[in-house]
Amino acid sequence: MTDTLDTTGSGSDDSEVEAIDRDLDESAAAIRPGKVTGRRAPQEGEVVVARTDVPWLTRYLLGTWADIRLASRDAAAKPEMQRIDGLSMAEHRARVLEQCRYLVETGQGLRAFPVELGGANDPGGNIAGFEELVVADPSLQIKSGVQWGLFGAAVLHLGTEYHHRTFLPDIMSLKVPGAFAMTETGHGSDVASIGTTATYDEATQEFVIHTPFRGAWKDYLGNAATDGTAATVFAKLITKGVDHGVHCFYVPIRDESGAFLPGVGGEDDGLKGGLNGIDNGRLHFDHVRVPRQNLLNRYGDVAEDGTYSSPIASSGRRFFTMLGTLVQGRVSLDGASTNAAKVALQIAVTYGNQRRQFTAGSDTDEEVLLDYRMHQMRLIPKLATTYAAAFAHETLLTKFDEVFSGRSDTDEDRQDLETLAAALKPLSTWHGLDTLQEAREACGGAGFLAENRLVGLRADLDVYATFEGDNHVLLQLVAKRLLSDYSRRFAKADFGVLARFVVEQAADKATSGSGLRSLVQRVADLGSTARSVSQLRETAAQRQLLTDRVATMVAEVAGALRPASKLSQKAAADLFNQHQTEIIEAARAHGELLQWEAFTEALEGPAAAGMDDGTRVVLTWLRDLFGLGLVEKHLAWYLMHGRLSPSRARSVRLYTERLAARLRPHAQDLVDAFGYGPEHIRASISSGAEKARQDEARAYYAEAREAGTLPAPEPKPSKKR
Amino acid sequence: MTDTLDTTGSGSDDSEVEAIDRDLDESAAAIRPGKVTGRRAPQEGEVVVARTDVPWLTRYLLGTWADIRLASRDAAAKPEMQRIDGLSMAEHRARVLEQCRYLVETGQGLRAFPVELGGANDPGGNIAGFEELVVADPSLQIKSGVQWGLFGAAVLHLGTEYHHRTFLPDIMSLKVPGAFAMTETGHGSDVASIGTTATYDEATQEFVIHTPFRGAWKDYLGNAATDGTAATVFAKLITKGVDHGVHCFYVPIRDESGAFLPGVGGEDDGLKGGLNGIDNGRLHFDHVRVPRQNLLNRYGDVAEDGTYSSPIASSGRRFFTMLGTLVQGRVSLDGASTNAAKVALQIAVTYGNQRRQFTAGSDTDEEVLLDYRMHQMRLIPKLATTYAAAFAHETLLTKFDEVFSGRSDTDEDRQDLETLAAALKPLSTWHGLDTLQEAREACGGAGFLAENRLVGLRADLDVYATFEGDNHVLLQLVAKRLLSDYSRRFAKADFGVLARFVVEQAADKATSGSGLRSLVQRVADLGSTARSVSQLRETAAQRQLLTDRVATMVAEVAGALRPASKLSQKAAADLFNQHQTEIIEAARAHGELLQWEAFTEALEGPAAAGMDDGTRVVLTWLRDLFGLGLVEKHLAWYLMHGRLSPSRARSVRLYTERLAARLRPHAQDLVDAFGYGPEHIRASISSGAEKARQDEARAYYAEAREAGTLPAPEPKPSKKR
Repeated sequence: MTDTLDTTGSGSDDSEVEAIDRDLDESAAAIRPGKVTGRRAPQEGEVVVARTDVPWLTRYLLGTWADIRLASRDAAAKPEMQRIDGLSMAEHRARVLEQCRYLVETGQGLRAFPVELGGANDPGGNIAGFEELVVADPSLQIKSGVQWGLFGAAVLHLGTEYHHRTFLPDIMSLKVPGAFAMTETGHGSDVASIGTTATYDEATQEFVIHTPFRGAWKDYLGNAATDGTAATVFAKLITKGVDHGVHCFYVPIRDESGAFLPGVGGEDDGLKGGLNGIDNGRLHFDHVRVPRQNLLNRYGDVAEDGTYSSPIASSGRRFFTMLGTLVQGRVSLDGASTNAAKVALQIAVTYGNQRRQFTAGSDTDEEVLLDYRMHQMRLIPKLATTYAAAFAHETLLTKFDEVFSGRSDTDEDRQDLETLAAALKPLSTWHGLDTLQEAREACGGAGFLAENRLVGLRADLDVYATFEGDNHVLLQLVAKRLLSDYSRRFAKADFGVLARFVVEQAADKATSGSGLRSLVQRVADLGSTARSVSQLRETAAQRQLLTDRVATMVAEVAGALRPASKLSQKAAADLFNQHQTEIIEAARAHGELLQWEAFTEALEGPAAAGMDDGTRVVLTWLRDLFGLGLVEKHLAWYLMHGRLSPSRARSVRLYTERLAARLRPHAQDLVDAFGYGPEHIRASISSGAEKARQDEARAYYAEAREAGTLPAPEPKPSKKR
Repeated sequence: MTDTLDTTGSGSDDSEVEAIDRDLDESAAAIRPGKVTGRRAPQEGEVVVARTDVPWLTRYLLGTWADIRLASRDAAAKPEMQRIDGLSMAEHRARVLEQCRYLVETGQGLRAFPVELGGANDPGGNIAGFEELVVADPSLQIKSGVQWGLFGAAVLHLGTEYHHRTFLPDIMSLKVPGAFAMTETGHGSDVASIGTTATYDEATQEFVIHTPFRGAWKDYLGNAATDGTAATVFAKLITKGVDHGVHCFYVPIRDESGAFLPGVGGEDDGLKGGLNGIDNGRLHFDHVRVPRQNLLNRYGDVAEDGTYSSPIASSGRRFFTMLGTLVQGRVSLDGASTNAAKVALQIAVTYGNQRRQFTAGSDTDEEVLLDYRMHQMRLIPKLATTYAAAFAHETLLTKFDEVFSGRSDTDEDRQDLETLAAALKPLSTWHGLDTLQEAREACGGAGFLAENRLVGLRADLDVYATFEGDNHVLLQLVAKRLLSDYSRRFAKADFGVLARFVVEQAADKATSGSGLRSLVQRVADLGSTARSVSQLRETAAQRQLLTDRVATMVAEVAGALRPASKLSQKAAADLFNQHQTEIIEAARAHGELLQWEAFTEALEGPAAAGMDDGTRVVLTWLRDLFGLGLVEKHLAWYLMHGRLSPSRARSVRLYTERLAARLRPHAQDLVDAFGYGPEHIRASISSGAEKARQDEARAYYAEAREAGTLPAPEPKPSKKR
């Protein structure tokens, strides 16, 4: 594992920077094959000019559901659909409920529902449309997501024809706003352990919904505090003295006057860190009776006589199948967080291109912020990650659409989809928050004003990191999938065998669940690439470094956990716990690889056929910045594992800085390509106002200098004093 | 640089973990010298039991100004002094203004002012008191900071006896609320470039305050939107056609009815991301005339005839001297951010000790969150950093008090104070935000509710990272100081000479400005320590690793910038820009070293004499976690520079995980030692409510199991199916 380690000196920075610049020039030249041969320096006129075709790239980023996204952006552009800062909680809630009604009128919230009920049977398009609402007001995105993506989707996916016919029309029309009552005060991510019970009473053919203790109150439910008149309540189904695990029930909770029905109670969660346009609240049930038919019975049913039946024999698999139908929440958060990062960067890059501060290379002209290297390194790598997350999201949404449209809906497809969503949602929601915060700080005091949007978006998106599956819990799910794939193949091999197969096997696994290409062959080349500094930037070298890391981490963890099967439950749990941070880190690395693969596919795949050479140069640099940025982030790992020599490791940072500097002139194009207009951005600092101010100030001084009216600077004190 | 690199294998984790555990046991045993000799394993009964004396540690953390801090906490405990979530901006502003009046009545805001005017002439105690107000409402801390720490302090420190007599009484009594009008829309951190002018008119013996263009509007000023009736306005002083640079003027802005005085205008900054109890706004001046005496003339004066004079000949030094008097803002943000981190950890650790989720080692009992390794690694290293930041803050505040009380007030003292503040304020404000966010996520959905405080505190503290000096700009100031100290000593040496002296010289420099001990001798041992894995944890090894990094980074940057003196202004600026991220990273490393030194001093210095052995064991582990955590964070650097071998580098992570596990049973004590009561914390999830809920749920199931009423689990499907 140390065969790639070299011990030659690191050389001077200057010559390395020159070598990197030469490499980047050549990479641009090499984009147009045939024009430039080999790796010689390009001749005058041969180099492809790095230049972004913004309209083309905008359309490319809009992806498969471009028209639906554009229609949703049009809706989000309407002032009445947008957040007003400073509303009271009650006013904000009322406004968002009204906005939801608009989505009903235009049919924009209903695409996922069956055609015969007025929907479009278009699961992918439905999510694409929702994601775009985040630019209007994240409360609107989430409130409508609660109504149709959770409450309605539970009826759609967990119910059967009776429920669709009986409940969906009023859910779709918002006549019945509803809560998705899964989470309890005592149990969030661990849904299997909820306390609410639904006990079948054969005598009356009813289920009795009951909350046995305070921790089993349903909590954090949108629509529960004020608006909801029904709820899809998750509870343990008990019949004939047997607990069949968590199932979902349709439960009316309020009458037409808004008062709780008998036996139902609750309270308001009150003010939150954000998303205050949604009325989150708590619910509890004191032996509330609903008809037997109110069990959403697609995956488990109870006959009149109390006999339980299910098409899925294993209660564990049944549980995960039921939860799996609700994966769309995670999918849409992945997309919405990435959209918020786009907005943040559009604001911060535009401002950074107009704002001037400190003179450096001149006595009179102040520098534009984005010309500072630090500012470039704060924003441009985040731009690269945002592109990676956007392309990865398109992959995820496509997979989701294939499964939920039924086009490709096997058990394995569903598992792959869930793993993909669980890997990407944590990365994109954290990236959204980090980007909003970096953008906020990069805009200084102006970034802290509500009128510039960044603080409001960040406050709203904060909870995306923990709802619809806590990010750390999701990463553990991913890791368990990676480990179980690993152990299934190598159950009987001893560790020596494992070690020999690690690269091939884990490389394959690294992309399982992603729908991306198999990397086995490429990774078999391990050790033969990345020989020179410049080769670090090559696609194959990046792929190898990233894939090898996932593979090795999974193999290492699997090896460490190997004794667990021979241990007591307690000791095995302790062993797992000792390696928990490594497990989560392996899952994160897997997610990062998926993002990188999606970016690379966007450059090399069939969809990229229409990309012009100039755009390809810019996007390739951006992908390289993302890939080498990941290597830099995990540089200690590569060094400790002998994958990079110290001198080569040093060049990684030189590369990311040079790439950011190369991309700096393209940063505005790259944020403009997100395709948002001022009606979506709505930040006064990115409106051009800052440029007008800067121009006015510069003109004032230039004029005064010209006219000789500028006061003289204070003379320097004489040396004698 | 590679002489410490070894190429032996990394060994198995198990044996390494055992070695680490043995080392930690021995370290505890070694705490009581004489009882245990050498490094043999401790005998039964010899080991000092790690146990925190919470009351003693609370008092220790309260530090020099303990009584003032306690009095301020008493004030912060009063409900009428506390934030109410959900108030409108107008209501919140009115409430905070009222709270400021309470501080006047009790004299708590006035300690910095002269005794003869009713103050206490106690600059350190004054800041200590302010910092504690952050637990009541950060808006109160900052609003009172604006009134007395900025507006009043400008009059106090930049004015002379006339101004003190004329203006301070009404400022102190809050009869005249005022704005500190330094920042402009166009210029924040670069104060020297503000556009507002104050031109002396000999005919009327007045200064004419004027805003020449939109970018020169004063902006983000607390008290400017509604409350302020005067302002200390920073403007370029122009007399006899010469621009003498930025000076400060006392300018009335509103009449008693609240209307702007003639020539003065402004607007409200409106809603912000937080701190909405403060009325930030903009001001502009159209040839507003103030008497000559309204120039705060301590560092520069204009005679009746327009002749300018100053006790400081150099306009540059004069400018920095004037700004330097306002360092207290940075000092108090450093303390307040650290206090907010304490509150966040008290909440998250308490909740993590009560909240249960997922069964792991048992079929029935769920695990407490803090027993998960990932949860430990999310919170306990942040606890270590909070202690480091708290001890470092005590060092800073002591230095501040020495300078501002006049006890030790040379030019060098002031420069050291400014460097120390500029190094620590970025680290602590970012740490505060990171900790609040990690605590928020660690508390899941409950953390997102306003009632649990974390989101509100985070929203308020967001701007601490960019006001009173943008964090990145401050770190550049620190780096420039490090580089100028370096070049002063080595101005004439060539690079070969520099390289030989680097360790000694930069080690010394690393603590310049800190008032901490010289490290020259210890660092001269470079390469001779850290020979075995366990020695990584030794104080000397940690010091060496951290100091060496600062020293080497400064020397490397200085070497890279060496050609600048021979270059054109433009080329020199480009060279500096190419190394900007390294420069900032060196300053950050310096700040981290200062924190580590302060923590170590708190363990070893005279003040630690009363510390019992059990507490010393716990705090030593905590310091080790902080120190090794820094090494881990920068592990790639240590590897690339040959300071750690790959195998030793791997053990760093094992150490930090083992230390966190060791500290886990002490986490509650360590947050309780912050000394906050429920009246300060005010988070329902850390009130014991979660424990009550968990206990109730567990009792419910235990009782049902006992009574045989728990439904049976669904039988496993037969294998045949």
